[in-house]
Amino acid sequence: MLAAHYAGNRTMTVDEADPAPPGPGEVQIAVAYNGICGTDLHILAGHMDARVDVPAVIGHEMSGTVAALGDGVEGWAVGDPVTVMPLAWDGTCPACLAGNSHICQNLDFVGIDSPGALQRRWNVDAGLLVPLPATLSLQHAALVEPTAVAVHDVRRAELEPGQKAVVIGGGPIGVLIAAVARSFGADVVVVELDPKRRSQVADLGFTALDPRDDTVAAVEDWTGGAGADVVFEVSGAAAAVLGAVDYAKVRGTLVVVAIHPEPRPINLQRVFWRELRLLGARVYQRQDFDTAVALLDAGEIPADALITKVMPLAEVQAAFDALTGGEAMKILIDVQAGEQSEAA
Amino acid sequence: MLAAHYAGNRTMTVDEADPAPPGPGEVQIAVAYNGICGTDLHILAGHMDARVDVPAVIGHEMSGTVAALGDGVEGWAVGDPVTVMPLAWDGTCPACLAGNSHICQNLDFVGIDSPGALQRRWNVDAGLLVPLPATLSLQHAALVEPTAVAVHDVRRAELEPGQKAVVIGGGPIGVLIAAVARSFGADVVVVELDPKRRSQVADLGFTALDPRDDTVAAVEDWTGGAGADVVFEVSGAAAAVLGAVDYAKVRGTLVVVAIHPEPRPINLQRVFWRELRLLGARVYQRQDFDTAVALLDAGEIPADALITKVMPLAEVQAAFDALTGGEAMKILIDVQAGEQSEAA
Ligand SMILES: [Zn+2]
Ligand SMILES: [Zn+2]
Repeated sequence: MLAAHYAGNRTMTVDEADPAPPGPGEVQIAVAYNGICGTDLHILAGHMDARVDVPAVIGHEMSGTVAALGDGVEGWAVGDPVTVMPLAWDGTCPACLAGNSHICQNLDFVGIDSPGALQRRWNVDAGLLVPLPATLSLQHAALVEPTAVAVHDVRRAELEPGQKAVVIGGGPIGVLIAAVARSFGADVVVVELDPKRRSQVADLGFTALDPRDDTVAAVEDWTGGAGADVVFEVSGAAAAVLGAVDYAKVRGTLVVVAIHPEPRPINLQRVFWRELRLLGARVYQRQDFDTAVALLDAGEIPADALITKVMPLAEVQAAFDALTGGEAMKILIDVQAGEQSEAA
Repeated sequence: MLAAHYAGNRTMTVDEADPAPPGPGEVQIAVAYNGICGTDLHILAGHMDARVDVPAVIGHEMSGTVAALGDGVEGWAVGDPVTVMPLAWDGTCPACLAGNSHICQNLDFVGIDSPGALQRRWNVDAGLLVPLPATLSLQHAALVEPTAVAVHDVRRAELEPGQKAVVIGGGPIGVLIAAVARSFGADVVVVELDPKRRSQVADLGFTALDPRDDTVAAVEDWTGGAGADVVFEVSGAAAAVLGAVDYAKVRGTLVVVAIHPEPRPINLQRVFWRELRLLGARVYQRQDFDTAVALLDAGEIPADALITKVMPLAEVQAAFDALTGGEAMKILIDVQAGEQSEAA
């Protein structure tokens, strides 16, 4: 079978590998589609070399069908459409014991810390499988994982129907958060620097603001002088973090979604003055996956608008390069493409 | 009567003034004691000149007795021991309408934005009065306001009995937070750079850590590898803010108590990784005042240890200078001292 590997040195290779049978308690998945995300780009850029053993099969935003069952696996049948919640926790650390196993202090993130989905046959622990409805296409289902991130962010913010949210950053995660927040009944404004992305955001029915305009005044107007209930910082930019608190109402919430590799200046005077709440939000819990599946199945997530392109596994390097160059929102890898001809 | 004024130019003056009768709805208080706090020192240093009209009678940590009642005031009698919750809100802004009047968007902080307690007769709106039990000394009662700050901080953190808290900064507010947290049933460690303050903190029964030691490892040991439930940042130091998140457990809380005039670098990677919660906490609500009175009356607050010195109103400049020089935890001004001889 073919498998894509991060080989170090900013390189993805596509190699022939022998598929292993699923071990006890494992399910073998025929991976259909795998989305490439910002974390994968960080891996390719070498930022996570301390964590990733090369050559590494990466990939964790996926859909597929059950191809084989390991010993002792019950409740699944060959052909079942599935996705994977790629978290494996130890169940014994203080975080797990306190009920926060999704951010276990020794978390194994499948696709980073252990082999991922960019291979034609992928063996995973059956406990990680999430069933998909037959009505959900496997392309759209490849967005379940990033949608679950967005659901987790929105749920962590305790966003309520009728509230007003500002999303800073109109990339894939920003758009997903905006869509999830809207599905929760909130009104959403998206702040995005790039004119092309801003117009995509507007096409999806959101108000899109240019951060070079007086966005704080715009949000104040929009909220009757109160400020936004929730601000999602998705851009990762230092300037955005500094300005983010200015959008928030008294006792409002700022959710830090983006990864900030360096400490960022925060206006703590404003945090103090308005008794703001700043929340970190990382990955997801099982209920976020279930909600994400339901939202995608219901058409609440603009999946087609987000999926810029579908490319075959053989072109994985080109797909990474296109995303690094900012040419696409989301690229899916068609992991089985060419499988027939190859087998022939 | 005598009144102390902030006269600008780092100067406090003590002047003779005519006491005004209380207006309708006002109560005239014979101020007994007034504590000087960090905000008062900021005013003296000129940091708040944009907000304070000189000459200004400042002071807001006080105790006293009712001296006269204005028209229409009911429920109070001359001689009643009282303190004042020095917040006046508009009742109409979005924050007030959302139930957060204590941080009204147009808040008048009495003693900063309007005349304060460093005068022998002080007229305040009767609605700001908080009754004191006869069993609470007026000196200790001058600590009700800063204790209410600490109660608000601890309550905002949602600190629960049996939890573990780290207080960064062993000054008056840090000690009050530690004492209130202990009264709520928490275990408390205080991190304080100054050896003298550290020994005062230890004398009060708290574990006192030197930040030059490996305090993160100490807190990890103390919490069985989990990290602290709540961290209170009271020091105001940039380095303390940067390190504060390292004490907190997964989903732990960092309360920003200190005033940080400039944006501070925050390790958002850690906030994200552990899904931390960072909360601003400002002033107090009425129930915080009531709790503060009860805690002081019950002897749960080390009032005698905190009150370094009591000085007469005539020596207010010397009192400010001693505090600015770090020579004292808390100095009370005896506002009535010498009143008899002066009148004679
Ligand atoms: Zn764990
Ligand atoms: Zn108000």
